[in-house]
Amino acid sequence: MLVNGKPGNSISIRDRGLLYGDGVFRTLRATSGKVQHWPLHYQKLQHDCAALGIVCPDVALLSTELNDLLVLHPNGVVKLIVTRGEGARGYALPACAKPTHLWDVALMPDYPAEWASHGIKARLCQLRLSQQPRLAGIKHLNRLENVLAAAEWNDADIAEGILLDVAGNVIEGTRSNLFILRNDELLTPDLTRCGVAGVQRGRVMEWAAKYNLPYRVEQFGLAELLAADEVFLVNSVIGLWPVRELQECNWTQYPIAMQVQEWLNHAPD
Amino acid sequence: MLVNGKPGNSISIRDRGLLYGDGVFRTLRATSGKVQHWPLHYQKLQHDCAALGIVCPDVALLSTELNDLLVLHPNGVVKLIVTRGEGARGYALPACAKPTHLWDVALMPDYPAEWASHGIKARLCQLRLSQQPRLAGIKHLNRLENVLAAAEWNDADIAEGILLDVAGNVIEGTRSNLFILRNDELLTPDLTRCGVAGVQRGRVMEWAAKYNLPYRVEQFGLAELLAADEVFLVNSVIGLWPVRELQECNWTQYPIAMQVQEWLNHAPD
Repeated sequence: MLVNGKPGNSISIRDRGLLYGDGVFRTLRATSGKVQHWPLHYQKLQHDCAALGIVCPDVALLSTELNDLLVLHPNGVVKLIVTRGEGARGYALPACAKPTHLWDVALMPDYPAEWASHGIKARLCQLRLSQQPRLAGIKHLNRLENVLAAAEWNDADIAEGILLDVAGNVIEGTRSNLFILRNDELLTPDLTRCGVAGVQRGRVMEWAAKYNLPYRVEQFGLAELLAADEVFLVNSVIGLWPVRELQECNWTQYPIAMQVQEWLNHAPD
Repeated sequence: MLVNGKPGNSISIRDRGLLYGDGVFRTLRATSGKVQHWPLHYQKLQHDCAALGIVCPDVALLSTELNDLLVLHPNGVVKLIVTRGEGARGYALPACAKPTHLWDVALMPDYPAEWASHGIKARLCQLRLSQQPRLAGIKHLNRLENVLAAAEWNDADIAEGILLDVAGNVIEGTRSNLFILRNDELLTPDLTRCGVAGVQRGRVMEWAAKYNLPYRVEQFGLAELLAADEVFLVNSVIGLWPVRELQECNWTQYPIAMQVQEWLNHAPD
């Protein structure tokens, strides 16, 4: 646990990360002292910081801290938070904010291995995501919608909840990005009005481009999701989970999802 | 500065208040060792905690802590934050969360006295508030929309920014609730899809009921705002500011706003 480069596990109660959720974060999976795709994560961190006008910590600084952390904690889920830092009272941006950055490590969740191999049971969340183009795509610290959505169920057999937006568009899982396969084409929701555009989502599109599978980013509704040939969810911790069951629909074969999963798990950086 | 009843100025980096903005807050004005309307603030805190499923700290506990704080800091802006506390990694609610509550005190902002007596210049924010009925009205810690809106200007002559929602409804100021007077009737925006329903907003309606001025909570757009006989903004720190200027419109007389202001500032608890 590092706060602004020093061992620590607390931040100021005047940090805007706490006061307003004024910050962004990254979640990485560490295995045997390595994290996958750190350059992509840094790039996304930089993008998200820029979207909020937060000065992103230097890549060399963060890389050094991450390497030090991985020596002590070679396996687990690594979280990196960057906030705008402390400032005078009120919403207005501090004149010269000094961002706060911190690292934390948690145990890798103990997900059943068959979720990756045989697919998961998912549910449709009642909560509908609001549309805010100014914040869409950014992995920021305003995550109450995800908290409320995740609070909708506590059946351990349900691995993830699927979120629609207020207009009925399919957007994502509560902590994952979503893809469907339809007529040999890969589709993933447009995230310009809500949702979080994760690093693994970008990698799936990279895979599709590399292996010449047509893919599109577009709006689609629940009916198209349920009628899909395959549905799968991705994030940096879980990798890829095919969806086996959602509402009255069942899927049993995931040929494309399995190819993508193999590549996500084993492609070099 | 008190954190869970003990002197302190930091919280855990694993507190869900930081990680997800999973908490609520109150802002009170302390004058000569007293805060106005603590019972109303506690009632609102309780309501907001309940809306998020957070266990609200006991009123006796908070009242004692507040009184102790006011002895040391008789004047200023008192902030009270209640978060869901720490939990295991992930959005899902912790099985037995122990909420975090903390107090902070800041200097009273040095607002020009004429803002209250002669009105303020306000601006219309470009950012449009998203609609999320599940979070509307709650003073929660997901405040990036307010941060982005407040970042739109840095002209010290502009005291507040007015926010519309994505549908064009007038909602509030970036840190205040809004009222308009039209044909001897008081109107304040419906906050069931976005916005924060503050304690002073409730008190203005209490005033209207007491003095038999018809009032309504309803949707209205910018045209109606600009055509109003009076426009004013309220919150617990500023009290009441009449709006003197907004876009091409100017107001010079605020007979009702001044009556409300007088009552807000001097009515007993």
